[in-house]
Amino acid sequence: MTTSQIAVTRTSGVTTPAGFRAAGVAAGIKASGAPDLTLVVNDGPQDAAAAVFTTNKVKAAPVLWSQQAVSDNRLRAVVLNSGGANACTGPEGFQDTHKTAEKVAEVLRISAVDVAVCSTGLIGERLPMDAVLSGVDKAAQVLADTEKAGLDAATAVLTTDTHPKQSALTHPTGFAIGGFVKGAGMLAPNMATMLSVITTDAVITPQQLDEILKATTKVTYDRLDVDGCTSTNDTVLVLASGASGVQPSKEDFAEALHAVCHDLVRQLQGDAEGVTKEISVTVQGAASEDDAVAVARTVARDSLVKTAFFGSDPNWGRIMMALGNAPAQIEADKIDVTLNGVLVCQAGGRAADREGADLSGRDIEVLIDLHLGEAAATVLTTDLSHDYVEENSAYSS
Amino acid sequence: MTTSQIAVTRTSGVTTPAGFRAAGVAAGIKASGAPDLTLVVNDGPQDAAAAVFTTNKVKAAPVLWSQQAVSDNRLRAVVLNSGGANACTGPEGFQDTHKTAEKVAEVLRISAVDVAVCSTGLIGERLPMDAVLSGVDKAAQVLADTEKAGLDAATAVLTTDTHPKQSALTHPTGFAIGGFVKGAGMLAPNMATMLSVITTDAVITPQQLDEILKATTKVTYDRLDVDGCTSTNDTVLVLASGASGVQPSKEDFAEALHAVCHDLVRQLQGDAEGVTKEISVTVQGAASEDDAVAVARTVARDSLVKTAFFGSDPNWGRIMMALGNAPAQIEADKIDVTLNGVLVCQAGGRAADREGADLSGRDIEVLIDLHLGEAAATVLTTDLSHDYVEENSAYSS
Repeated sequence: MTTSQIAVTRTSGVTTPAGFRAAGVAAGIKASGAPDLTLVVNDGPQDAAAAVFTTNKVKAAPVLWSQQAVSDNRLRAVVLNSGGANACTGPEGFQDTHKTAEKVAEVLRISAVDVAVCSTGLIGERLPMDAVLSGVDKAAQVLADTEKAGLDAATAVLTTDTHPKQSALTHPTGFAIGGFVKGAGMLAPNMATMLSVITTDAVITPQQLDEILKATTKVTYDRLDVDGCTSTNDTVLVLASGASGVQPSKEDFAEALHAVCHDLVRQLQGDAEGVTKEISVTVQGAASEDDAVAVARTVARDSLVKTAFFGSDPNWGRIMMALGNAPAQIEADKIDVTLNGVLVCQAGGRAADREGADLSGRDIEVLIDLHLGEAAATVLTTDLSHDYVEENSAYSS
Repeated sequence: MTTSQIAVTRTSGVTTPAGFRAAGVAAGIKASGAPDLTLVVNDGPQDAAAAVFTTNKVKAAPVLWSQQAVSDNRLRAVVLNSGGANACTGPEGFQDTHKTAEKVAEVLRISAVDVAVCSTGLIGERLPMDAVLSGVDKAAQVLADTEKAGLDAATAVLTTDTHPKQSALTHPTGFAIGGFVKGAGMLAPNMATMLSVITTDAVITPQQLDEILKATTKVTYDRLDVDGCTSTNDTVLVLASGASGVQPSKEDFAEALHAVCHDLVRQLQGDAEGVTKEISVTVQGAASEDDAVAVARTVARDSLVKTAFFGSDPNWGRIMMALGNAPAQIEADKIDVTLNGVLVCQAGGRAADREGADLSGRDIEVLIDLHLGEAAATVLTTDLSHDYVEENSAYSS
């Protein structure tokens, strides 16, 4: 995951591009009374949309609905709720999603098939539909294109997240991209278990939007792996209004989208459940990019590597153990491992004294050189801490 | 993993079968002064042997040595040390293993190629060879065929294990099998990260021994998954002396070996790092046994499932999330999930109130019915607890 050169701001999100209104309200879905329903509306003139969904074979009702809704590459609105995933809820759960989309369509005077639905929270429970439907009314009444409305939208989707996560930029050529993301647990590849809505006022065809989104998520959201758990609800949506009148080059748009997605993913990493270390695992010298990703992901996901890092322990032997399990071409006696700039393992054996690598800070950079080829990749992860265990042993009950 | 009908005892191990002597001594490899070197000797008359090693592509020096030593299906002795894995130690590490085997050969007046070597402990550090070699002398002097010698042998291999783990049986037809195992972390499939030595006085050909051992490990050691981490050193060895003069049927021997291995694996599960719950995940109704194992393993390995169980939380939605990520054929709306006898998920949706499933005890039984076929499999695991994080964040430093 390379760092983009374009500057982003985290003070605004989906309402930065022209043509969008948003809202986030407390609908009463969460027992706590916290905000729990978000609405994002594309007022046009265009309505191109693209999406990427979870690879989990158990898909929540809103994922099944939204896959259909976006199949024509057009969306006018997205409604999202926290307080319940609406997953493993059977035909009734799907009807609840359908009703929610119908309600949004009714209040906005659009078609239900142009409304995507996202849900997050506990799996296996029906949503309180009275609260959801009245929440849609409430949200529609306060839709606005202001920074505050964007922040409200980013806030009402949160579950165990500790703060809203937004990112936006205005490109020198005159178009803007903004977005928000939620996610703190079940963070794994092929949609880093989360919900993300991105807006843009660029003029772009649905086909280009789809192509660029898929290429971008592959190297941003898909390269975060907090706990190896891919959720039933992961969704990334991008909506284009065309309201800027600017038609960017493919390269400019791809670079800008990458900058926003990369920044959102870094915020997901920093707000992951129980995180005390932000770890990047870079593999270079791989025979292929797939191999580089496989090795980096296997190391990033290994419980013994992650607990060692929680303890600030430069235990490179566990990294060697982990990468030996990766489904990739490796030769143990060629491998170098560098921890925060200190070469601790050279040609598969001990190099500098491991204690020379200082891992006491929040950031840990792991560099693995396989010395087999030219391909490289980076996967982001976090440590496995007491707080991770604590948060996840007490979530549903 | 089916439970065997043959009764085993845990009060003795490798010295139960006739023809074997063993010893366990404090050689000074561990700084603590605890026992750290084990010797097991087959006095014959036969010397058939078989082995299964780690699938990790990063293999420790003793694994590389022992693979060669056992390639002719004959072994006369095994030397094992704790206090250092001798992994990622380069050509010098391999020479250390070679020297250790030569030393054993010298004191026992046998050939070094009939000596297997096993090591466990920290990866990436050379062994203190003076201590290892003098330890071999010390162990050879106290070799005995007593129960105490067997227990000493089972004790000197321990690392973070809290107690020695042995199992033995005498078959009604007159042959015996005994063994020990060590392992507490890095416990995962395809050799459940551990060292295990098994002895028998049955008369058996090397080819039969090899065939039965491989079939047995596949459904015992390989079906324990504590943390998904397969180590660099995993080894299971079985040595046959023929001293009973009894040549069992293939079925009798296979059943007896299964009984001992199954019991050793249950002890590994019960002594895993930080364990507060002993969990069995059974998948039935799968299209194939491979699918059943894949689904059971994916659930057994999932951090969110394991933390929920640590919290005694019957959060079946996480089980559905996890199994949706398994590389296997599933249909979400056909799946039933039963927790400790309570059907909490039926046809992919909520059944009984989850709170009706009492997970407050130490044993948790997960039963998943895919309703797609006839195949079934069980994988054993443990919870993900604070103690697991604590032990593994402070192990090397």
